[in-house]
Amino acid sequence: MTDEHIDLVSDPVDLINDPETEPNEDQHESESLSELEQLRIDLDEAKNRSLRALADLENFRARTNRQAAEERKYANLDLMRELLSVWDNIGRALEAVDKTHHLESLVEGVQLVYQQFLDILTRFHCEKIDAKYKAFDPNFHASVAKIPNNEHPVNTVIEEVQTGFRLFDRVVRPSQVVLSAGKSTSTSDSKQPSSDVQPE
Amino acid sequence: MTDEHIDLVSDPVDLINDPETEPNEDQHESESLSELEQLRIDLDEAKNRSLRALADLENFRARTNRQAAEERKYANLDLMRELLSVWDNIGRALEAVDKTHHLESLVEGVQLVYQQFLDILTRFHCEKIDAKYKAFDPNFHASVAKIPNNEHPVNTVIEEVQTGFRLFDRVVRPSQVVLSAGKSTSTSDSKQPSSDVQPE
Repeated sequence: MTDEHIDLVSDPVDLINDPETEPNEDQHESESLSELEQLRIDLDEAKNRSLRALADLENFRARTNRQAAEERKYANLDLMRELLSVWDNIGRALEAVDKTHHLESLVEGVQLVYQQFLDILTRFHCEKIDAKYKAFDPNFHASVAKIPNNEHPVNTVIEEVQTGFRLFDRVVRPSQVVLSAGKSTSTSDSKQPSSDVQPE
Repeated sequence: MTDEHIDLVSDPVDLINDPETEPNEDQHESESLSELEQLRIDLDEAKNRSLRALADLENFRARTNRQAAEERKYANLDLMRELLSVWDNIGRALEAVDKTHHLESLVEGVQLVYQQFLDILTRFHCEKIDAKYKAFDPNFHASVAKIPNNEHPVNTVIEEVQTGFRLFDRVVRPSQVVLSAGKSTSTSDSKQPSSDVQPE
């Protein structure tokens, strides 16, 4: 821009005669035009980029939603496949007892299945919650009763009624526990401990 | 801006003396400038929009990847919770037999568990694949043998060695099946059918 101004000043006569065709004016205009032109091109490009980015976002959103729904649908497949072998073994144990009437071997077979079941759950990170003789933790334990107990301090788990399980840090189901109510205050406790059960 | 132009045109002498202020040129230039200015503003806006859209896309990508990983981690939780009751019942049946030595009731208990197991799988859309007497379908069946059979056409499933399961349209495991090889061509078949087993 500064250059153009210098040119204009160098030939003042032409300015009066025909300002429309004045070469410097033309140059000035064409330079402005070329800058305008460039800006317009840049603007178009920027607009296209922003439209493309928005379109990418929409496509990605739609695609990931589809994928998530698909993944959710088949999420249990691997665990199911593993557990079917437990189901098979239960079936086989029943079949064997049906043929042989050998009931003792059924006990054995079912014991194996019981362990196999747990092994598979563990392999899929579903693990037993530690409860017995631990301090009561409401995040992992559900107290079903509170009984006076001379050996363990108040709110210690003294009995596990049902094993709890967690999946990583999340509770699949809490341990159902009986808590210590601490030392009994009356001497009659040892005779009638059941009367001290306090369901929660 | 417009007000200035009117003022300049009202005094033509100035135009000759000072080409810098020539009204057409100046008007032309200022219009170009205002268009340039507007284009620059538009360009900045478009650039910002495209940067924002790209940032949104990146954020969305990161967030959905985090969510997908989280979802995957806990995907089996509901199925696990349900199946733990099967595991409980196996444990209870074993406990009962341990106390009562009443083995017949164990058979009954295990039969119930066997059915409960299947019911839960079904509720989670893991269902038995239809195989017996169906035409062989390599998508759902795995053939383990082919035996001459006078009642069923070639490639009909005549025996199911292991039950197959599918989760919606996907195979959890195929049915292990024995296929008909069609009518036997020799008369000795009925005497020695086992010699005709053709493992695949």
